[in-house]
Amino acid sequence: MKIAVDVMGGDFAPLETVLGSIEAVRENSHIEVVLVGDEQQIFDILEANNEANNSRISVHHASQVIGMDEHPGQALRKKKDASVVVATSLVRDKACDAVIAPGSTGAAVAAALFGLGRIKGIDRPVIATPMPTVNGITVMLDSGANSNSKPKHLVQGALMGSEYAKLLLGKDNPTVGLLNIGEEATKGNEVVLATYPILEKMKTINFKGNVEGRDIPKGTVDVVVCDGFVGNVILKFAEGLVTGLTQLIKESIMASGIFAKLGAMLVKPALKHIAKKIDHTENGGAPLLGVNGVFMIAHGSSKAKEIKTAITIAGDLVDRKIIEHIQQTIEIEGALKYEYDE
Amino acid sequence: MKIAVDVMGGDFAPLETVLGSIEAVRENSHIEVVLVGDEQQIFDILEANNEANNSRISVHHASQVIGMDEHPGQALRKKKDASVVVATSLVRDKACDAVIAPGSTGAAVAAALFGLGRIKGIDRPVIATPMPTVNGITVMLDSGANSNSKPKHLVQGALMGSEYAKLLLGKDNPTVGLLNIGEEATKGNEVVLATYPILEKMKTINFKGNVEGRDIPKGTVDVVVCDGFVGNVILKFAEGLVTGLTQLIKESIMASGIFAKLGAMLVKPALKHIAKKIDHTENGGAPLLGVNGVFMIAHGSSKAKEIKTAITIAGDLVDRKIIEHIQQTIEIEGALKYEYDE
Repeated sequence: MKIAVDVMGGDFAPLETVLGSIEAVRENSHIEVVLVGDEQQIFDILEANNEANNSRISVHHASQVIGMDEHPGQALRKKKDASVVVATSLVRDKACDAVIAPGSTGAAVAAALFGLGRIKGIDRPVIATPMPTVNGITVMLDSGANSNSKPKHLVQGALMGSEYAKLLLGKDNPTVGLLNIGEEATKGNEVVLATYPILEKMKTINFKGNVEGRDIPKGTVDVVVCDGFVGNVILKFAEGLVTGLTQLIKESIMASGIFAKLGAMLVKPALKHIAKKIDHTENGGAPLLGVNGVFMIAHGSSKAKEIKTAITIAGDLVDRKIIEHIQQTIEIEGALKYEYDE
Repeated sequence: MKIAVDVMGGDFAPLETVLGSIEAVRENSHIEVVLVGDEQQIFDILEANNEANNSRISVHHASQVIGMDEHPGQALRKKKDASVVVATSLVRDKACDAVIAPGSTGAAVAAALFGLGRIKGIDRPVIATPMPTVNGITVMLDSGANSNSKPKHLVQGALMGSEYAKLLLGKDNPTVGLLNIGEEATKGNEVVLATYPILEKMKTINFKGNVEGRDIPKGTVDVVVCDGFVGNVILKFAEGLVTGLTQLIKESIMASGIFAKLGAMLVKPALKHIAKKIDHTENGGAPLLGVNGVFMIAHGSSKAKEIKTAITIAGDLVDRKIIEHIQQTIEIEGALKYEYDE
């Protein structure tokens, strides 16, 4: 299996993206990577790590990069040789089986849509983010691909999120909740009110009704379905809250006496696995579901470990035929025949 | 000044609501409270606390209560003598200056709207929740009164939130941000895209542009404006996240050895003021802004301390004429003349 990695995207590119790719190859004997980006820079990093002659690592030159602050649509039109575009084209042309795209989410979504197209029956792709919870992982989607979700987008998201959770969490019949402001079916805005009865009728998902904001960290359900605007705000809020709390705790301990500092040292090991649990780099990015190919979006701040995990998960999704599973479910569901807004 | 307290609302009513009212009267010499609810139960609690003869505490009987799980509109039509309705009517009839309403948010909003009406120029009231941040307090609104906000509702919310922040935070020119999925003015869903240019033109607010989810815990701006659906989800997500983290930390320490437990003991005092900072009971509820009177919504799980704080803040808002300030700002702004959707 070959995975195309856009090694120029993200804050620590290309060094960390190349290092993460090397690690992924070392740990997964069936994975080959194609590193897409500036040939010379990539070779230098491979040389320095004694991997220039690894037959499972190849390099595909791309002369341009799309920056975090560029307008996705405009950048895509101007930069035909951007690394994310070239990496995506390798999957379109069947030269590779999956794409890893760190950096600008907007550019990644646009490149995937233009390069791979949509799965038949899907109107808009969604980003499915694994959220750490008290009970393990909950998949939240959409977390930012589509900020004007209509009922049909939420319905399609529920279907795809459920298939993804089966593979990611290893559950046969993952539970699905609709994010709302109350548990009753009569609560919510126009979009969720119209979505609820459709989800209830679906045959291929295990719909548990509405869930509230607090149910995400509680891990009440395996899949939480929401609009991309809401999902994106929550994701960034969670990041900010964890960072803020950590900062407050550090400041508070530094301002305290020797006993508090000693206490912090003693308690640290016990807290390490929590830090690991809620550390997004442990989860290695989020797949963009609904496009015609395995496409993994990694955080812009990805370091080597996150890239390695993203590659490993992408390999797993290819092995376990996520795209085919989604296609089959759409057929069983006949989801588009439900009467919801167009 | 007289404050009407619905002492029957919330999970710990009437005991905690009456105790909180007693504490508020003890701490604020200019405040009188009118306890609205079951006369006998209230008297018993006052007796037990030697406050039955306090001239600054009076009792107003109401024979009904609206439960947390009742449909607000239906309950309001059926229960004419519900404590929250009676408490609100005392303000409408100028017998009291403010209402404290713990319990069902939906019932509180409906009671306030029917009982007090809206301030001229305001289409829908908003709940303004003080959120603890690394930099102090940020007011987030709407956090749940209106789950289908249009641009005009967000604009009116920005205006009212700014006036509230002036009083609550003691800042002359509080900063206002629009919650969005990116900082650029071109990002977001249809509603925020239409809202942005109006906020930019307003004379009475210090608009700083878009903010993202992470800016709430960072405290980047004093006022964050968002749709009530989004605000409600964030508020509950934050509650769940803090509860979840606390649980994980406790479990982890209990599962560790004696050193970790000792460490936790030593570090605890340093963390106490953080717990205090992020404890929502410190903030004592959220005002419903936009109705014709000071109306404070307290959390359903309010204990005495939160009720006391809510009463104190309500007294402050009356003293500092929040309603008049909002009315004056609407006049200066001529907000309704902006061309936004109807």
